Amino acid sequence: MDIHWIGFDADDTLWVNERLYREARTRFDALLASYGIDLAVANRRVDEIEVQNLQWYGYGVMSFGLSLIEAAVDLTQGRISGQGISQVLELTKDMITAEVELLEGAEQALAELSSAHPLLLITKGEPNHQHSKIERSGLRRHFRQVEIVPDKTPASYAEILKRQAVEPERFLMVGNSLKSDILPVVAMGGWAIHIPSDLTWEHEVVEIPPELRSRVFEVAALSELAPFIDTLKGSGTDRETPARRAGTG
Amino acid sequence: MDIHWIGFDADDTLWVNERLYREARTRFDALLASYGIDLAVANRRVDEIEVQNLQWYGYGVMSFGLSLIEAAVDLTQGRISGQGISQVLELTKDMITAEVELLEGAEQALAELSSAHPLLLITKGEPNHQHSKIERSGLRRHFRQVEIVPDKTPASYAEILKRQAVEPERFLMVGNSLKSDILPVVAMGGWAIHIPSDLTWEHEVVEIPPELRSRVFEVAALSELAPFIDTLKGSGTDRETPARRAGTG
Repeated sequence: MDIHWIGFDADDTLWVNERLYREARTRFDALLASYGIDLAVANRRVDEIEVQNLQWYGYGVMSFGLSLIEAAVDLTQGRISGQGISQVLELTKDMITAEVELLEGAEQALAELSSAHPLLLITKGEPNHQHSKIERSGLRRHFRQVEIVPDKTPASYAEILKRQAVEPERFLMVGNSLKSDILPVVAMGGWAIHIPSDLTWEHEVVEIPPELRSRVFEVAALSELAPFIDTLKGSGTDRETPARRAGTG
Repeated sequence: MDIHWIGFDADDTLWVNERLYREARTRFDALLASYGIDLAVANRRVDEIEVQNLQWYGYGVMSFGLSLIEAAVDLTQGRISGQGISQVLELTKDMITAEVELLEGAEQALAELSSAHPLLLITKGEPNHQHSKIERSGLRRHFRQVEIVPDKTPASYAEILKRQAVEPERFLMVGNSLKSDILPVVAMGGWAIHIPSDLTWEHEVVEIPPELRSRVFEVAALSELAPFIDTLKGSGTDRETPARRAGTG
């Protein structure tokens, strides 16, 4: 294998993200509970509104905040108070300003890999917030380029690689999301390393088709990434590699 | 002058944008009026909240919608109803799904210029919404590259030009906003053509320092753009050009 360029996802690959969404949902649940709302019913409805709104709002914290506000009105049948709405605005802003908490080994993995590989940061969501997190993370200097896309599709990866004149065959993507980081990249002829996260949004979980699984590897933690990529580079593509191949993650 | 690459702003340069914000504010005013709020006072407060929130939410319709919701709670002192909040969510979604209305001459100007120049579309805001508008505009095919940035600063232009290996001296930016399209580009050694828009957000109006004014030109309409750029290319940089030089716009 002749991998040269390496792409990294950011949210839940380099730093904590999903936990902030879960914590916000817990605060939102407490608000709903104060209106006597059944939380089991409510949670399904919130999920539904959130996914439905992706087509208009895209991915990110503002999208999430607007969906929670819509859900609050919907679930309370309009009884939500101005004070309740303020609480949702506040938890949205708290998510935006939350400290960037790096995952263990992020800094070292990037430092090791960037000496031999041009690194790309490829993330989806709201650019203002994503750029702010990248700056505050202290990790910007390891990356040749930062790409923020509305959604991670085969087309969006193809455009990024074309712009950098990178052959898919020489590109490896590292991330926690099978849907966004792994499937689109291997579907276009690249390689991927899946690092499962403790918490992953269920919307980001998909099945990798059997014929593509040989292009997907799995490592358990960022600390294992650089040594694993070294062994990959020394290996053929058609024999078993030291780490187990990923199934559906 | 040896201009080769041409950048275009999109909102209020190629298609109608500010009018949608004004119409949304009119709907919002009607909502506030139904609570007996003094609109003169309210408008100042809404502007203040909107500009204050740019640091967290960035530019775009979701940012605007979240600011209106915050303003609705603030100005009604929490009396806003769930139904009122729904109206704000609805006007936000209406803005996102609004038909893209091209400004007169947009299609032809791009068709003419793209035969001799690589064109870049450079816009700020929420990528999901901006990409959707670009696709729906039918103008995507004229552009070599689309760049969506969180804010239009000298640094963001410098990064785009570096990535395309374009010398600032050979780059010309076309747009309606002195703050976002004109000043940062001429400040880094590029050239700019200002096409004033009927409506411009007051936040986007700045003074161009006298020493930079010789790098800024003004044309009245998109239909005059391609002929004007032709005359520019045939001219020196130190004599008066056929169109008047822009002052502060």
